[in-house]
Amino acid sequence: MKQVSIALLGCGQVGTGLVKLLQQQRNFIERRTGIRLRIKRILVRDSAKKRQVRISGITDNIRHILDDKDIDIAVELIGGIEPARSYILKLLQSGKHVVTANKAVLAHYGSEIQEIAQRIGREVYYESAVCAGVPVIRSIKEGLLANRISLLMGILNGTTNYILSRMSEEGISLNNGLKQAQQYGFAEPDPAIDLQGIDTAHKLNILASLSFAIKVRPQDIYTEGITGIELEDIKNANEFGYVIKLLAIAREIGRNKLELKVHPAMIPKVHPLAAVRNEFNALYLHGNAVGEMMFYGKGAGAMPTASAILSDIIELCTKSLTYSHQLSHFPNAWGHKRIISMDETVSLHYLRFPIVDKPGVIGKIATILGNHNISIYGATASLVPVKKALGNVRVLTKKAKESEIKRAISEINRLPIMRGRAVIIRIEE
Amino acid sequence: MKQVSIALLGCGQVGTGLVKLLQQQRNFIERRTGIRLRIKRILVRDSAKKRQVRISGITDNIRHILDDKDIDIAVELIGGIEPARSYILKLLQSGKHVVTANKAVLAHYGSEIQEIAQRIGREVYYESAVCAGVPVIRSIKEGLLANRISLLMGILNGTTNYILSRMSEEGISLNNGLKQAQQYGFAEPDPAIDLQGIDTAHKLNILASLSFAIKVRPQDIYTEGITGIELEDIKNANEFGYVIKLLAIAREIGRNKLELKVHPAMIPKVHPLAAVRNEFNALYLHGNAVGEMMFYGKGAGAMPTASAILSDIIELCTKSLTYSHQLSHFPNAWGHKRIISMDETVSLHYLRFPIVDKPGVIGKIATILGNHNISIYGATASLVPVKKALGNVRVLTKKAKESEIKRAISEINRLPIMRGRAVIIRIEE
Repeated sequence: MKQVSIALLGCGQVGTGLVKLLQQQRNFIERRTGIRLRIKRILVRDSAKKRQVRISGITDNIRHILDDKDIDIAVELIGGIEPARSYILKLLQSGKHVVTANKAVLAHYGSEIQEIAQRIGREVYYESAVCAGVPVIRSIKEGLLANRISLLMGILNGTTNYILSRMSEEGISLNNGLKQAQQYGFAEPDPAIDLQGIDTAHKLNILASLSFAIKVRPQDIYTEGITGIELEDIKNANEFGYVIKLLAIAREIGRNKLELKVHPAMIPKVHPLAAVRNEFNALYLHGNAVGEMMFYGKGAGAMPTASAILSDIIELCTKSLTYSHQLSHFPNAWGHKRIISMDETVSLHYLRFPIVDKPGVIGKIATILGNHNISIYGATASLVPVKKALGNVRVLTKKAKESEIKRAISEINRLPIMRGRAVIIRIEE
Repeated sequence: MKQVSIALLGCGQVGTGLVKLLQQQRNFIERRTGIRLRIKRILVRDSAKKRQVRISGITDNIRHILDDKDIDIAVELIGGIEPARSYILKLLQSGKHVVTANKAVLAHYGSEIQEIAQRIGREVYYESAVCAGVPVIRSIKEGLLANRISLLMGILNGTTNYILSRMSEEGISLNNGLKQAQQYGFAEPDPAIDLQGIDTAHKLNILASLSFAIKVRPQDIYTEGITGIELEDIKNANEFGYVIKLLAIAREIGRNKLELKVHPAMIPKVHPLAAVRNEFNALYLHGNAVGEMMFYGKGAGAMPTASAILSDIIELCTKSLTYSHQLSHFPNAWGHKRIISMDETVSLHYLRFPIVDKPGVIGKIATILGNHNISIYGATASLVPVKKALGNVRVLTKKAKESEIKRAISEINRLPIMRGRAVIIRIEE
């Protein structure tokens, strides 16, 4: 039986889960692969701290891992940009393959890391960075290799999906939804990175880079979170046959252009993504041969993440350690596609205008929209129950350019009939 | 650039789709893998027939493929048991790797084929046999390798799912649903294999064999199709918060027992599988580390099938042709699990008793159920609108053993109040 030695960098919840899972599945993995996995070293900040699981090889010095020629694979579980990035580069330069769950470092430095890994002939695997245990990276890389992917649409963040589900199903506010999410462990104490869509954008960056073989910088992705979503708009969505989800979208526009964006969107209730509730994640895509497809599962948590990391370790053992011809988790040749600006994107829109109810209000709004070439399916007024003189005009537009929408909205926002700023939510059909 | 020569056995819709897809994606595949794929030979019954795509190397003699040392991989697209099985064995014995989409041959002879392939050191890949282009085989084999799978639940046949969706959404009969399916190309002219659940059982056989590393014979799987499903039961399901789907189920019972069955079942409307409509397929599963997961997509069609076949060809090229340590598509060691008989299974049930309405009818039925240790959640009577003296008693049971249900139903069927046979539909929650 071949033995492979592994090092972990970090031993928090995911690291502990990985140690546990490896113990549980050791026999099965040995029988299936002929490989014995051994965790030889674990880098921690405090080597004196008591741990949940029995582990040996604890160290607080990265050199003990870098200098150990016996270690073939290192698993980076530190998170954040530094020192994770420097450690990954040093590990590669010491001849080790790297498995990482680190979305942020891949979104910011993925192509740099890939180029160094490729030069040195080592691999960086990152199945766990997107949708945790759901094998989306592996599926895009191998199972769908024969496809030209034209659309990726994902619910990639469990925290925000949980909050939006609770708002929609229980009629509670965003703040109360967030409190519930924190109570059940689906949200971090500081949820800003989730709520603002940044975590989703990191994952979209990784998926788009792999699927379209392009280098994506974080600033290439228009990113809008869910903090502006009000219960009123969730109710209106329901009335119009939609649900609101925080979507990550990568869409081919013609052969050479790409739309990359993260924002809340209304999707029809019959869309497969509409049934993805609570903390679950899903990736929906179009391939030219397979047509529509969706992957669904838990996108976070110690054990789902450990599951993906262990599958990466096994793949490295069975392929890359002995064989040079495998498919990299990264594209090995970068293609060229122009990522269009948000202003150039075209979409259907739901618009809500909080107004003081007067005759002619809908006419004024519709006229300004018309002046900006925005056609509308319909406009309806609804009154605020307690204050009869206040209301909302709700408009569903036909396909309209983002730049025109912006200009029209800014003009309408200045009208004296407005008692607040207009709400804009894009619609994906 | 390395060149790999391929032979196709059969050139119907899938074969033609494969030739087309390979032409479309040739550049991309060469850039990504460094491999040039060439279809050198195509075995057909009638070599004079005119074809949709320009192909060369047509032959009607299998020896032209078996004897050609240059051919590394053969793709079996003949379908059915013979001559497909003999050809697959001969191809392996001639030293070729085999890719097949043939569910029937795998369900009946999978373990025989695997044992011969393993002895000879060749591979048989079959991603396209289940869920076509959706990479479920690859995901179970690699992405979920770190998991102990305890439940597989699939909608694996597009024809029956299309029919049930139309019945449920349009209120049409099974026969009219079938006519629609045939009209849109989602059903074969002879739909018996689909309607009777046999196609679904073949696919469950393949999935269970891989996931639990066991040999499954077709007769090990209880198989019940959708031909007994009436519109009335679909409406009742809806009233009780369920939808009816033809499910393939493999469930671990304790450590050493397994339940394998194909039958129509009611599932709650909020279950992820409930949203799988029309011709789409899905595989839902539980892994001890990943938790719940689902794969969703088209389970049939020339291009989705070709997509999976091409991914198998590429995997064979990049791994098995040069490297001996890869994971087989088959288990490489068989485990031991006893497949329990249908009589031993335990389930919730929906029961419908067509009755002549008289006082005491529910009492009689409930008493017999009680005598067989079947507890019920509730029993309601509904009358046939036009004939007021006729009705149905609908019962939802708690968990009950199949053998007891059978005995109770056979007793109730003999009561003079019954105007037809009882309908039994199991419920999966």
